[in-house]
Amino acid sequence: MAEGGKVGFVAMTSEEKAKANIPEVGIGMIGQAFMGKAHSNAWKQMPYIFWPPAAIPKLVTICGVHEEALKESAKRYGYEKYTTNWKDVINDEKIQIVDIGTPNYLHAEISIEAAKAGKNIICEKPLARNSKEAKEMRDFIKKAGVKNICCFNYRTVPAIVLIKNLIMDGKLGRIYHFRARYLQEWIMDPNFPMIWKLKKSESGSGALGDLGSHIIDLGRFLCGEIKAVMATSVTFIKERYNEQTKSKEKVEVDDAIASVLEFENGAIGTIEASRFCAGRKNYNTIEINAENGSIWWDLENMNNLWVFWRNESLIETQGFHCVNVTESYHPYYDRWWPHGHIIGWENTFVHIVYNMTEAVINNKPVEPYIATFEDGYRNAVVSDAIIKSSETGKKEFCVFE
Amino acid sequence: MAEGGKVGFVAMTSEEKAKANIPEVGIGMIGQAFMGKAHSNAWKQMPYIFWPPAAIPKLVTICGVHEEALKESAKRYGYEKYTTNWKDVINDEKIQIVDIGTPNYLHAEISIEAAKAGKNIICEKPLARNSKEAKEMRDFIKKAGVKNICCFNYRTVPAIVLIKNLIMDGKLGRIYHFRARYLQEWIMDPNFPMIWKLKKSESGSGALGDLGSHIIDLGRFLCGEIKAVMATSVTFIKERYNEQTKSKEKVEVDDAIASVLEFENGAIGTIEASRFCAGRKNYNTIEINAENGSIWWDLENMNNLWVFWRNESLIETQGFHCVNVTESYHPYYDRWWPHGHIIGWENTFVHIVYNMTEAVINNKPVEPYIATFEDGYRNAVVSDAIIKSSETGKKEFCVFE
Amino acid sequence: MAEGGKVGFVAMTSEEKAKANIPEVGIGMIGQAFMGKAHSNAWKQMPYIFWPPAAIPKLVTICGVHEEALKESAKRYGYEKYTTNWKDVINDEKIQIVDIGTPNYLHAEISIEAAKAGKNIICEKPLARNSKEAKEMRDFIKKAGVKNICCFNYRTVPAIVLIKNLIMDGKLGRIYHFRARYLQEWIMDPNFPMIWKLKKSESGSGALGDLGSHIIDLGRFLCGEIKAVMATSVTFIKERYNEQTKSKEKVEVDDAIASVLEFENGAIGTIEASRFCAGRKNYNTIEINAENGSIWWDLENMNNLWVFWRNESLIETQGFHCVNVTESYHPYYDRWWPHGHIIGWENTFVHIVYNMTEAVINNKPVEPYIATFEDGYRNAVVSDAIIKSSETGKKEFCVFE
Amino acid sequence: MAEGGKVGFVAMTSEEKAKANIPEVGIGMIGQAFMGKAHSNAWKQMPYIFWPPAAIPKLVTICGVHEEALKESAKRYGYEKYTTNWKDVINDEKIQIVDIGTPNYLHAEISIEAAKAGKNIICEKPLARNSKEAKEMRDFIKKAGVKNICCFNYRTVPAIVLIKNLIMDGKLGRIYHFRARYLQEWIMDPNFPMIWKLKKSESGSGALGDLGSHIIDLGRFLCGEIKAVMATSVTFIKERYNEQTKSKEKVEVDDAIASVLEFENGAIGTIEASRFCAGRKNYNTIEINAENGSIWWDLENMNNLWVFWRNESLIETQGFHCVNVTESYHPYYDRWWPHGHIIGWENTFVHIVYNMTEAVINNKPVEPYIATFEDGYRNAVVSDAIIKSSETGKKEFCVFE
Repeated sequence: MAEGGKVGFVAMTSEEKAKANIPEVGIGMIGQAFMGKAHSNAWKQMPYIFWPPAAIPKLVTICGVHEEALKESAKRYGYEKYTTNWKDVINDEKIQIVDIGTPNYLHAEISIEAAKAGKNIICEKPLARNSKEAKEMRDFIKKAGVKNICCFNYRTVPAIVLIKNLIMDGKLGRIYHFRARYLQEWIMDPNFPMIWKLKKSESGSGALGDLGSHIIDLGRFLCGEIKAVMATSVTFIKERYNEQTKSKEKVEVDDAIASVLEFENGAIGTIEASRFCAGRKNYNTIEINAENGSIWWDLENMNNLWVFWRNESLIETQGFHCVNVTESYHPYYDRWWPHGHIIGWENTFVHIVYNMTEAVINNKPVEPYIATFEDGYRNAVVSDAIIKSSETGKKEFCVFE
Repeated sequence: MAEGGKVGFVAMTSEEKAKANIPEVGIGMIGQAFMGKAHSNAWKQMPYIFWPPAAIPKLVTICGVHEEALKESAKRYGYEKYTTNWKDVINDEKIQIVDIGTPNYLHAEISIEAAKAGKNIICEKPLARNSKEAKEMRDFIKKAGVKNICCFNYRTVPAIVLIKNLIMDGKLGRIYHFRARYLQEWIMDPNFPMIWKLKKSESGSGALGDLGSHIIDLGRFLCGEIKAVMATSVTFIKERYNEQTKSKEKVEVDDAIASVLEFENGAIGTIEASRFCAGRKNYNTIEINAENGSIWWDLENMNNLWVFWRNESLIETQGFHCVNVTESYHPYYDRWWPHGHIIGWENTFVHIVYNMTEAVINNKPVEPYIATFEDGYRNAVVSDAIIKSSETGKKEFCVFE
Repeated sequence: MAEGGKVGFVAMTSEEKAKANIPEVGIGMIGQAFMGKAHSNAWKQMPYIFWPPAAIPKLVTICGVHEEALKESAKRYGYEKYTTNWKDVINDEKIQIVDIGTPNYLHAEISIEAAKAGKNIICEKPLARNSKEAKEMRDFIKKAGVKNICCFNYRTVPAIVLIKNLIMDGKLGRIYHFRARYLQEWIMDPNFPMIWKLKKSESGSGALGDLGSHIIDLGRFLCGEIKAVMATSVTFIKERYNEQTKSKEKVEVDDAIASVLEFENGAIGTIEASRFCAGRKNYNTIEINAENGSIWWDLENMNNLWVFWRNESLIETQGFHCVNVTESYHPYYDRWWPHGHIIGWENTFVHIVYNMTEAVINNKPVEPYIATFEDGYRNAVVSDAIIKSSETGKKEFCVFE
Repeated sequence: MAEGGKVGFVAMTSEEKAKANIPEVGIGMIGQAFMGKAHSNAWKQMPYIFWPPAAIPKLVTICGVHEEALKESAKRYGYEKYTTNWKDVINDEKIQIVDIGTPNYLHAEISIEAAKAGKNIICEKPLARNSKEAKEMRDFIKKAGVKNICCFNYRTVPAIVLIKNLIMDGKLGRIYHFRARYLQEWIMDPNFPMIWKLKKSESGSGALGDLGSHIIDLGRFLCGEIKAVMATSVTFIKERYNEQTKSKEKVEVDDAIASVLEFENGAIGTIEASRFCAGRKNYNTIEINAENGSIWWDLENMNNLWVFWRNESLIETQGFHCVNVTESYHPYYDRWWPHGHIIGWENTFVHIVYNMTEAVINNKPVEPYIATFEDGYRNAVVSDAIIKSSETGKKEFCVFE
């Protein structure tokens, strides 16, 4: 995974910029709902925000289920074509990057076929329904040698990259604690219906894969590999009405999980993922306590980072710093706006597609701060251990292959 | 000004959307620096975020000073042409909307010529260097009958529209207090050079026009017309080095102003604008105290709104509510993302260009919550009164014509 | 334990107050360090804050180790006598209430002897070094029939009582989650010496008993009994220098623990206690997510409570309320100051001694919102299960006898 | 006024403490309502918190209006005597310190008589109803040579002393801005009755003297003398029902004031005082922007201080520090509790009476960080200028004699 290094940009002189003859890179989008919108926006914003880009994204094809809606989406975002058959995307020679935002159960088949076809791949998280499936994907992708990103987009929030830089530079020292919670509230209503995200066969797990996977990723990214877990899992509302089948169905996935973590480096942690936390809209929050200081952050106020240093030159005013991570010297921010002019959630995806474009065009590994299929696989191993621990009532170890 | 009503969208059925044959509207951008980037981004994001739009913006021409840079900007944002002569924009038949982001001293001439040419106009704030100039612009625009917006973009922050709605619906009742501060820190260094924003001839005023005008606008928008002011003004650093002329020049504009306000409706207020507030990056913050409750908001955390109600059903838990203004029922937010997925500063301009496009294509007045040249003029009257009061040491009344 | 009911005060008319012939109650304080100071202050403030009190505390004896210091303390706080032999306190007929603030290993013997002597007892937390010792204490006290309080003082913070009232009134509904952390930083320095709090024989455990016991108590108090735990425990600094013995000694207690909780009512939770969290001075924070809303609170800002309600009359301004729990209708606050005039940490003990005095003088059970030895014992059972789980790597159940 | 120096304590060795033969100092309390309670508590807490004190306060007499209530108060707080005639206090030889907490219109006569009788005086703020009255008091006190404090108690909040120290040490550099607001909500209800605080003859002014005087004091204390003001004043509710006279009476004092300030050192500022700010319970908040940094603080969370430094060793994590001002090296805090264990509003008075006791017993000037009658007088001059400016609509200068 991470091979060190920071997010960096090679500055072009204005003369070079003037001469720049920028190639195109063909994009195939599979999925047209929430993620289709967010990713399409990213492909469109990236080239002028990250100017001059390694390549101008050409939106070739959008793929989905409903033909009428697809027709509209193609028009809306500027895709040349649309299709209801994802194999059309895989087999299109004009497409270099396949961007997958489907329900989880389709990730494996599409990714593997795309890799076989030599496509570079961005796949939404969680990578797969379980670690077995994820391993297969990781193995195929590796063999195929294509660029690959598992879309843990919060790694590209400027504040998160700043934390990573502080850790890599040794500023924080030995890490003692990681604690993270990703809390939402959207299925608290017992009348909320059965949807694919609540079906084990389609999503793999519940809050764990949807939310927990993000904070497992931040834990691994920032604090190192997870060795073992001790977890509990609960489904508060046992049955939901399926509007398609017109019947109540059993909810087979977790509404919430809570787990203790043991890291390989001796740190301990806790994570919680739940969709039953009233008032928590998108509350992804982490805290790290280390030898030289502490850090906390939450996604709902994602442009701020709170940092405490044990050693301050003026001890009388020691305290948590509220850092508005919007300075030109902050990660990615020289590309955006003057300080204090905050960016939004959607812009994290701009950073993702920028990094993929750089990797594809310059034929180099994806920037080590970006999550790959390897990360997606390891994430699935941790998730599987959490599910197992909640069943066995025992500490379960994470075995990576 | 405001004729009542809320921000609203007419929903199209999917059948209608499929049939939609969307026209184009030609955009001419004058100015290619900070505002050029922010406005260009808005024109590009708007049509797919506010889908289906009344028209697809066609980026026709970008106009600026430096030809090489312009050439690059045209390529970067997708403008068909570029020019160093703004009259080329005014006279282009393919252009329906002229978007002006130049230094202040150019606003008047360009706006008036554009109006003469029948163009619809978005002009950055402050509208002009003083109220005399602004009045001329307002009068011309009125006579020409073109759609016009003075780009007080913070009116389109969802949280601000929410405040306006609460006030219009009578929820807050009689307003007692308005207090606002727009604080920045970027010229605190005495070695910061002389630039156009520090020259009276080019900018009109200092922190007052640059920052103060925004909060004067929010005061007028939310609390009603301003009747009188009592102000002081200060220039902390009297001379700055001009890198072009290689000499120290006198700073003729304010580094900071502070003013007491008297509103026509009996409310009183204070405003402060300063560029000498260490740690305040872009701290535009307002508080309103009214008969039934209080409200406060700050731009650095622009997706949150704090609201206190005097009457709560459960008195024991009365307190300021921290509202994450990102619900689908919040202003504009049905167009963006699920709740808790925040938008950024740049997106306010998307709302501005959306409203202009609606007005032009449907030939209706600009949405009454959007600031027009009339607002820009009245804003300049208040600003002039502030300058005058700081000179006379007396209460000065705002006389609108 | 809790038999329902709220914190309430019987109002006296001013005529009654004038007539009031207030008895005295004799206090014996065992321990003269941090807790000796805090408890002495409480006995002195209580009678005029909770005027008219059931009895005026008479400070009879203070007991400690160092004679010179004791002499000074007696003079300082106004104790009539001092002694280095705690049995002098136990056997003093003038003393009705024994207040124990010694190191943990002395709690059991002193409490049991005090109970035998018919004294009413306030004992600092944790009640004992382990559940076996705690059970013995609980059993003796029960048999003796004396009033008893285990000093989990955070139960008496007005904000915490408010949470309890909301729960008892059914306002929150079914509880889904409890998450609590009690974090400090004071032994992060490897040169911090070996002290009694780091010796298993004297303290029983480390962060668990010192900090974790407080949040176990809040979990039990607010959310109900704990059924099972899955925990990990860590000692980051393995050896510390003992300034008495002039040698390095092994640290036998935990520097931090983290545990998943399963409650009897189906809620799940997490707790963490650590003394290795830079910047966290006294960060005792809890969050509860329930059917109808959520709540969070932290001790460093103990007068504020954050409450979210799923059902608000005005949905547009729904959000966490920041409640300043200082209104006359808030628990205990009619005794203090006008709203917005906050109380401090020390005042929680005033509430403790008020409740003990009421129970003793009126010969009634201690107010059900106050923790007793029964709570102290059950707390120890949960703590023991946490230690055991961290050793076995298995879920451990809490067995109360 | 301030002659430099910090709050400091001379450490006694334990041997010295043991020997200490502490004298008594007699206290006469005039006023038995809110301030009587707060001041009595302070006299009782001081000697054991500031151990060993220069003297043990002996509560000799409490004076008020209602005999029955006085009798009870004497019993409650431990005063030896009570009286309805304040001259009994003035003439009592056992009393060295007279502590005045009456309505404002009584301050002058009582103070002057007390000074004549050679008593040392603590007088609640505002010192008088106007500057003429205050001048007379100041002059008499000076001639009498007695120790005197005007009870601007917020000067003794540890966070406020910390600000003062940072300024005196030159850490902040040149001050640019001071902005302060003291907002409450308690008379918003039109049915709130006419009371002495709303009568000009008894209180002198409204929100200005009650709240505004506190922030005028903080401005003078922290930023230097005020040169001129430009103000507006408003009475929102013109008539109130007097429950004694059974009739509606005209409200002659301000419900709110807002003023621009010009300081002698070139800084500018704004202050606002209002009792019409829903949700603001006791919201006394200040911000200072200076050459090297910024500071803000609010009373509702009085143990926290926010500090921004322009020069930080690690620029990436620059931001406002949230300082919990509870460390042993913070002002006064070595006398209280371990860090993170906050103090309350009432404890500011403990600091006041500590300083008075030190001055009286050691016959030295009152600690220069404490406000005297000189400060009370100058405060009244600024207040009068604010009233005058709101009447003349002109800048009014503060003339100190």
